Amino acid sequence: MTEAFPQLGRRLRLGLVGGGPGSFIGPVHRAAALLDRRFELVAGVLSSDAEKSRAAAAALGIASYPSVAAMCAGEPQLDAIAVMTPNHYHFDACRTALQAGLHVVCDKPLTNSLEEARALAALGAVRSRVFCLTHAYSAYPMIRQARAMVAAGTLGELRAVQVEYLQAGMSQRVEDGPLTAKLRWKLDTAQSGPSLVLGDIGTHADQLLRFVSGRRIERLSADLGAVVPGRKVHDWGAFLLRMEGDVRGTLTVSQALAGAENVIVLRVFGERGHLEWTHARSNFLTFAPHGEPVRTLSRGGPGMLPPAARLVRIPAGHPEGLLEGFANLYRDAAEAMAAAALGVPADPAALDFPTAADGVAGLAFMAAAIASQVAGGAWTEVQP
Amino acid sequence: MTEAFPQLGRRLRLGLVGGGPGSFIGPVHRAAALLDRRFELVAGVLSSDAEKSRAAAAALGIASYPSVAAMCAGEPQLDAIAVMTPNHYHFDACRTALQAGLHVVCDKPLTNSLEEARALAALGAVRSRVFCLTHAYSAYPMIRQARAMVAAGTLGELRAVQVEYLQAGMSQRVEDGPLTAKLRWKLDTAQSGPSLVLGDIGTHADQLLRFVSGRRIERLSADLGAVVPGRKVHDWGAFLLRMEGDVRGTLTVSQALAGAENVIVLRVFGERGHLEWTHARSNFLTFAPHGEPVRTLSRGGPGMLPPAARLVRIPAGHPEGLLEGFANLYRDAAEAMAAAALGVPADPAALDFPTAADGVAGLAFMAAAIASQVAGGAWTEVQP
Amino acid sequence: MTEAFPQLGRRLRLGLVGGGPGSFIGPVHRAAALLDRRFELVAGVLSSDAEKSRAAAAALGIASYPSVAAMCAGEPQLDAIAVMTPNHYHFDACRTALQAGLHVVCDKPLTNSLEEARALAALGAVRSRVFCLTHAYSAYPMIRQARAMVAAGTLGELRAVQVEYLQAGMSQRVEDGPLTAKLRWKLDTAQSGPSLVLGDIGTHADQLLRFVSGRRIERLSADLGAVVPGRKVHDWGAFLLRMEGDVRGTLTVSQALAGAENVIVLRVFGERGHLEWTHARSNFLTFAPHGEPVRTLSRGGPGMLPPAARLVRIPAGHPEGLLEGFANLYRDAAEAMAAAALGVPADPAALDFPTAADGVAGLAFMAAAIASQVAGGAWTEVQP
Amino acid sequence: MTEAFPQLGRRLRLGLVGGGPGSFIGPVHRAAALLDRRFELVAGVLSSDAEKSRAAAAALGIASYPSVAAMCAGEPQLDAIAVMTPNHYHFDACRTALQAGLHVVCDKPLTNSLEEARALAALGAVRSRVFCLTHAYSAYPMIRQARAMVAAGTLGELRAVQVEYLQAGMSQRVEDGPLTAKLRWKLDTAQSGPSLVLGDIGTHADQLLRFVSGRRIERLSADLGAVVPGRKVHDWGAFLLRMEGDVRGTLTVSQALAGAENVIVLRVFGERGHLEWTHARSNFLTFAPHGEPVRTLSRGGPGMLPPAARLVRIPAGHPEGLLEGFANLYRDAAEAMAAAALGVPADPAALDFPTAADGVAGLAFMAAAIASQVAGGAWTEVQP
Repeated sequence: MTEAFPQLGRRLRLGLVGGGPGSFIGPVHRAAALLDRRFELVAGVLSSDAEKSRAAAAALGIASYPSVAAMCAGEPQLDAIAVMTPNHYHFDACRTALQAGLHVVCDKPLTNSLEEARALAALGAVRSRVFCLTHAYSAYPMIRQARAMVAAGTLGELRAVQVEYLQAGMSQRVEDGPLTAKLRWKLDTAQSGPSLVLGDIGTHADQLLRFVSGRRIERLSADLGAVVPGRKVHDWGAFLLRMEGDVRGTLTVSQALAGAENVIVLRVFGERGHLEWTHARSNFLTFAPHGEPVRTLSRGGPGMLPPAARLVRIPAGHPEGLLEGFANLYRDAAEAMAAAALGVPADPAALDFPTAADGVAGLAFMAAAIASQVAGGAWTEVQP
Repeated sequence: MTEAFPQLGRRLRLGLVGGGPGSFIGPVHRAAALLDRRFELVAGVLSSDAEKSRAAAAALGIASYPSVAAMCAGEPQLDAIAVMTPNHYHFDACRTALQAGLHVVCDKPLTNSLEEARALAALGAVRSRVFCLTHAYSAYPMIRQARAMVAAGTLGELRAVQVEYLQAGMSQRVEDGPLTAKLRWKLDTAQSGPSLVLGDIGTHADQLLRFVSGRRIERLSADLGAVVPGRKVHDWGAFLLRMEGDVRGTLTVSQALAGAENVIVLRVFGERGHLEWTHARSNFLTFAPHGEPVRTLSRGGPGMLPPAARLVRIPAGHPEGLLEGFANLYRDAAEAMAAAALGVPADPAALDFPTAADGVAGLAFMAAAIASQVAGGAWTEVQP
Repeated sequence: MTEAFPQLGRRLRLGLVGGGPGSFIGPVHRAAALLDRRFELVAGVLSSDAEKSRAAAAALGIASYPSVAAMCAGEPQLDAIAVMTPNHYHFDACRTALQAGLHVVCDKPLTNSLEEARALAALGAVRSRVFCLTHAYSAYPMIRQARAMVAAGTLGELRAVQVEYLQAGMSQRVEDGPLTAKLRWKLDTAQSGPSLVLGDIGTHADQLLRFVSGRRIERLSADLGAVVPGRKVHDWGAFLLRMEGDVRGTLTVSQALAGAENVIVLRVFGERGHLEWTHARSNFLTFAPHGEPVRTLSRGGPGMLPPAARLVRIPAGHPEGLLEGFANLYRDAAEAMAAAALGVPADPAALDFPTAADGVAGLAFMAAAIASQVAGGAWTEVQP
Repeated sequence: MTEAFPQLGRRLRLGLVGGGPGSFIGPVHRAAALLDRRFELVAGVLSSDAEKSRAAAAALGIASYPSVAAMCAGEPQLDAIAVMTPNHYHFDACRTALQAGLHVVCDKPLTNSLEEARALAALGAVRSRVFCLTHAYSAYPMIRQARAMVAAGTLGELRAVQVEYLQAGMSQRVEDGPLTAKLRWKLDTAQSGPSLVLGDIGTHADQLLRFVSGRRIERLSADLGAVVPGRKVHDWGAFLLRMEGDVRGTLTVSQALAGAENVIVLRVFGERGHLEWTHARSNFLTFAPHGEPVRTLSRGGPGMLPPAARLVRIPAGHPEGLLEGFANLYRDAAEAMAAAALGVPADPAALDFPTAADGVAGLAFMAAAIASQVAGGAWTEVQP
């Protein structure tokens, strides 16, 4: 573990939005925020249920507020909020915080519509506030290594890309049984957005592809729908892609593939070789150079490039996991926030975290996907 | 090794078409034909170059003929021919042999056009001749196991399928250097057919998918072309699929992905779990049942179903390879041929090898792929 | 992440011994102690260099003390100390704390001699203080799963065990170059103990074997020494073992195997199957039942038994790492400490962490190993 | 497939000893002998049961003889015999053939005693006959690659070695049920030799270690016996080793480990890195160079050294298996035999197959193992 002591000043005061009882992602956010001791948790609107919210805040030993607006106006003033609610609350929470001059850490997808996403990105830019979108896979050291190798030209010209993200959570007819609170909002497109699978994991796949390849998706042809008979929400999306520079690609996501345990596979092919990364072996990265034996790079092992090496916390051979990925985002966001507070430049190496612009790109991907689907799979431009 | 002694009579006399000096697949065919001692090699038209053909036949200790027609008319009469030439010779060789009343073993793709494929299938049916198309991966025990498990309902209703076949052979600008004989015919679409990547490996991917899922591809949306700049032939094909019963799927093939060492990945997802098979671990099959730990079945190990078990030659833990797959096809084709000669029914278990009908299906896939590509990726029916 | 809120009262006050600048394990201990918010860091003797110690404490925002004794006598009183110094400081630090009535968390090996280990274990027992020895691998969920499966009789009668722990850190002639501070104490047997490789990783292998199999090592035959020519300290140990119940086994450790990236492999064989776990895939456990396909259990996936399930922090498919293992120990130690403070029984499920008794067992293993080596590899009893 | 046409003359006439109905290894030997068309099967003493022997010979279409002596005296004269009987027949069969001036291919272990092994080796040398011992794993391309890399100094000075060979066939109390013919001779030490596990697989492990490391085993300390309670024959052997040049090592073999599917793991460590090979991935070899990412070499892929490349039959990415390993031995033995017949030098590259000298080394290992066991595990010299 590298510990980033708060050299730029005091710990940042963080207000929590969402992540109350029963949340999977809430405790991950909180632990990640605390891990490097750059944040302290001071307040929260932890649940849309006022009583639950108060009880959860008490258990965490933090102040409870009835609304994000109230929390942003509280004393002592917060530095930032972290949003980990269902999707449809993101927009209001983030807007309120940005308008109050706070920085924001927000879970993905940024919002449920492209327009809202753009509005937040614009507002953050105008207010010069730090906005960190927690696509945490992009803060795994080996994903940063892949990005750095592509950027360094290790693969030569890019030729093709593949990404898939496959889950099993919706593989059964969950609609037929009693709904958990989580399922209830997910199955309601008013809350979860126009495409469940794209909001939940498609935006991750999109971001990983763009992040590692360094290119945007220009066009796509979509096959979007449900593989479970009778399902109203999307649980499957398969896409033919054209990235910048006429690079071909495929992107496949589903939440309804029985036995698929959060499978993520990413491959980037160039004229001189390819990279492959899988979630099940997240501490490793395979590099297959043309005409040479395949190499397996390990987190912290030989060959790590600086943007990846700076995220390695413990020596090679000792596993790191999702929590560290989240914590890397929080640590770098803290660096940017502290720099803003002090009016000094942040460490440029710390500024590679996903932002509202990534959120906009994710929503643009989703909008193009839906448009293509409506048009019978026609090739559709992704708005820049 | 199980040895299938020729209980139905003498060894079958096989004539070879193609597979001369420099061929990769020729020696595989010959070794496979001989492995179970059901065939003897007696004659050949081994090369389109008469002198090379004679010399190669002499080295193999078999009779040399100037043409397939002459070989089929030779004495003593052949039982079958095995065709392993460049694609554009397949049609004439197979037609000649079928018209002469011989059985046929033929490498894929069956022909270069759907019409020719249909003509061969019809001719074979009229003449009641055995026609074995050497999609050898389909004769790997673990592929048969996957097929048998799907057929037995182990996965429940099918939900989605994925197949990819990725090679590196065309990843560099081979067009710019001196061309080998092999490259010369491959780069000439008059010889290799309208889509190089689909003829070479796309038909394998298509056949594997149909063979294991037990379903035909009804519709597809194609992205077909070249990832290497300036290339005239296809080296990339990505497809969105709809299988019978509204099963969604993807199929991705490329011969131009640097560092990809004949990667084949096949996944079949059903309501109760999924199967995954990769070529790099061809002696194993992963079964991920819903709600239970993942299981790895091994060739010859516990849980093998009869259609797969009959192809296992040596005990679990000892690897088998491609040669055995080819030999399984030859052995079963021999069984069918011998039964035809004796006028007795063949062992039904032996009749699961790919035939001209598979060749027709492969060409129909290719035709639909090209039609979709021409129509800008529009969803296109695959002709039954 | 499950968060164990401090239901039994306030957070426990922890004093740190060692883990100052340059330490690998110091930051891991600190992050682990904080992760579940059961401890707060309040004081430290962070380095044997007084100035460094003060600076490091200031950076951490905690009180600095010149000695463990002074820290244990400080106000407000500590609940526990955590010892992460070089080995030869362990005994004094732990004894001082126990005598002062504090609980102890201590890194392995417990001490440098069996006598000292026994003295600490006895002192802890007399004082009824919690003593947690940080064999963190034993707190990985899949190691707990293996232990629980063995205990549940899943394997039937045990037949044999294998463990190996292989590192590369000493594979080169590090003695010839300028010594780091860390190497200096490691190469000095007065500080690192009588057998470097056994103190560093042999005690881990010994503990893992005993922990998972539920049996002690009764006898061993040792081959202990150095594989790097001219080396004075041990970098290799290979052992033939006899566990309780006449179970045979092997244990192999080395720190001088070039290219070995902290390789840990553990296998337990019983009449009904075996378990295999490797560090490189620490989130998975392989179970090979007799006569059935091999199963891969995943952390948080189907089949987790309660003692393992309680340590799972995030859903299956998302990796956890070493930090979480350490944190599991700290969380359970906190539970035990809080229960002691309140005079109530601790959750029995929390009491499966390694203690001073494990430290004694580790030193007894080391003593027997050295005795066997001195006796030319003769089979030697491990003192109970 | 490379086909080695019989350039040095006619095909060699091979007589078979053993391998009749029910044999696992008989069909493997026969297919391997035929694969490269350097041998023809002409005669056999296929079973110790005269009637079975005759029937099996008829099924194979070869002449049947009542004894090895009669077969060796038959017309036309054989070139060689291949011995695949239970162990206790090896000595007489091989001696008879050598005395008759025939070459010999013999399965392992060479004999049941060191004295017999030495006698055969001496006789073969005196008669200048080719003697090929079918340690087929040593003819896998990736094992040859490992040997070539060690020989080329890729690892620098050797530091340590590990080999293990684990099977499950004897994991249950097979003694309690009705015995198969195979089990009957295996459980009778008069037939299977003084140590079942060492004869069956220990000699393979020993040979692999020596073959790849290029060093003999000088001394060992043994733990030999049975892990299944009440068993009379050995099913477990674990060894501490000292190879030439003071290289340390371990060797572990067992046939009684439930769920172990013919597991073979071989590791060779040198100052500059290590090699690892596992049977479950026999077409790959892992090379972990010090200070560089791990590399995975694949059979036929980049980096193959000439002694390995010459054994590669089909391109990388297409699996080869055990049969090809056996066939490699037969092909090279045929080369040596043909050269002897013609009085010309054989291709030196073909002469790397295991011989009677390897058989002697294997029996010397076994003798030392038993002696060490008798002496309570005392370190014991392996006779050169």
